[in-house]
Amino acid sequence: MLPPNPTTAPRGGEAWREDVALERIADLLGASLPGARPGGWGDDAAVLERPAGRVLVCCDAGVEGVHLDATLFPIADLGYRTAVAALSDVAAMGGRPSAVVVSICAPGDVDVVAIEREVAEACATAGCTVVGGDLSKAAVTSVTVCALGDEPGHGAVTRHGARPGDVLYVTGPLGGAAMGLRRRRAGAGLEDPSLRWFRRPTVRADAGAAAARSGATAMLDVSDGLARDLRRLAAASGVGVDLESVPLCDGATLDEGLGGGEDYELVFSHHDEAELDAAFSSADLVAPLAIGVVTDEVGLVRYRGAPAPDLGWRH
Amino acid sequence: MLPPNPTTAPRGGEAWREDVALERIADLLGASLPGARPGGWGDDAAVLERPAGRVLVCCDAGVEGVHLDATLFPIADLGYRTAVAALSDVAAMGGRPSAVVVSICAPGDVDVVAIEREVAEACATAGCTVVGGDLSKAAVTSVTVCALGDEPGHGAVTRHGARPGDVLYVTGPLGGAAMGLRRRRAGAGLEDPSLRWFRRPTVRADAGAAAARSGATAMLDVSDGLARDLRRLAAASGVGVDLESVPLCDGATLDEGLGGGEDYELVFSHHDEAELDAAFSSADLVAPLAIGVVTDEVGLVRYRGAPAPDLGWRH
Repeated sequence: MLPPNPTTAPRGGEAWREDVALERIADLLGASLPGARPGGWGDDAAVLERPAGRVLVCCDAGVEGVHLDATLFPIADLGYRTAVAALSDVAAMGGRPSAVVVSICAPGDVDVVAIEREVAEACATAGCTVVGGDLSKAAVTSVTVCALGDEPGHGAVTRHGARPGDVLYVTGPLGGAAMGLRRRRAGAGLEDPSLRWFRRPTVRADAGAAAARSGATAMLDVSDGLARDLRRLAAASGVGVDLESVPLCDGATLDEGLGGGEDYELVFSHHDEAELDAAFSSADLVAPLAIGVVTDEVGLVRYRGAPAPDLGWRH
Repeated sequence: MLPPNPTTAPRGGEAWREDVALERIADLLGASLPGARPGGWGDDAAVLERPAGRVLVCCDAGVEGVHLDATLFPIADLGYRTAVAALSDVAAMGGRPSAVVVSICAPGDVDVVAIEREVAEACATAGCTVVGGDLSKAAVTSVTVCALGDEPGHGAVTRHGARPGDVLYVTGPLGGAAMGLRRRRAGAGLEDPSLRWFRRPTVRADAGAAAARSGATAMLDVSDGLARDLRRLAAASGVGVDLESVPLCDGATLDEGLGGGEDYELVFSHHDEAELDAAFSSADLVAPLAIGVVTDEVGLVRYRGAPAPDLGWRH
């Protein structure tokens, strides 16, 4: 858990001005954070040295009141969680996050430097840097993170390649984010360990790269809930899914595991268990968990034989 | 002027759902628009083929009520104008815009497809494509555009290289956006030609590339007003500026030209008029306009001898 750093937070209630806040962010990023690089802040655009090949690019927005209840969590959590959402999209293609740009829109009394700091912290955990961004006043706080990544040498893993007979795996237990939100609503303190999946989710970049390297046939991250995300994978690949088990975080319910979303574990299909095990163990990673199989029942997601409930995140 | 296309707008008042709107956007972009490519919409991230070299990346946010008064202009204008703001940042480094990702946050009754369409139209004018994005519900509409670009072979032009004795140029007349806003507030119709600078500003990508190729020493775009943006250039380069003239759009006032902002013309410093003329004329571009000279009075921006007024955009 990362409380706002009192040395970088504005004085209480002081409204920020764009130019002053940008200077403080550039100082913060340049001075102290491993996941930060100030290059893009003082110019119109950041300049990134890139090898030839393919670049992955995506963006995710996080909106106060939609993605984060600011009466329950520090608004800076929106920065961390939105960054993870974007970085996880790169990981879900098998790619390595390389850089992000961040746009923060917020009322004048919101500590935009603290939000930026959390974005940079999340980037540091995924081995990449904040290279630029934008600030704007707005009535409601929102954060948009655009993540760039390097495509793995063997090609990006899309949602389209799952084939009947493939086994489905997930990189870790599910439902933790939904459980943390439930616990917080029931009065758990911000530092309660059960909130860590919600407040500080993990980008599974190493696992995504291992899955891609070993020949995963399709992959995505669990952002909107396992049931809903599996439906997307099934639709994109023209297959069905028989889900046999849902590994749960300690204390999470099955509904939270099936429908909670925002866990950012990766789900992928694979047809060669030996290759997969070798890739994960050679990268010193916990083995992924088999959760089901791919079928030829196009578009149908079953859980233990019955159609899976239509759970999942919808705005 | 581009009125919303009635065949792509949702039925009146119908709330959008993220999955349905994304499908319609993918259809729209894939089917009909030159500045669009649907690749990124159906997967976690878009995959871009890149030559070796440097990538430029930046982002800009546009917020209803801050950057656009939705009681005076169609909300879709926010898409066009925010895209131009981001693409112009690439142009201001001398780069070629290559792709954008777009995040739109909006209430359920806002026509997000029309906003996306305007983003794609702006991209088409700059020769690049929409490769992906995100949609989210929010109480207030905001659009964040992240633009990628290719660095010119001779290196990006930053704000840091202006030297005393360089001449300052601008790629076109200023004040048009502020004038258009004033006229609209005074009752001009949406299709009034004087509104074109506000509603459909131009990305000066060709001019930026010509300036960079011919050896511009520093460059930026006029996004927050000439006086304010020149102060930034002066501060970054450790120089001063003597502004001698401000070319104005027909009907714009001097205050609008000095302080209006959002014109997206490029301002750059240069020390070789012959090289500059050759680059612009060989690219069939209108010659840039000389507006002043770079001095050694660090940080000081004068207009006709007196300190320039502190006009310009501030949230």
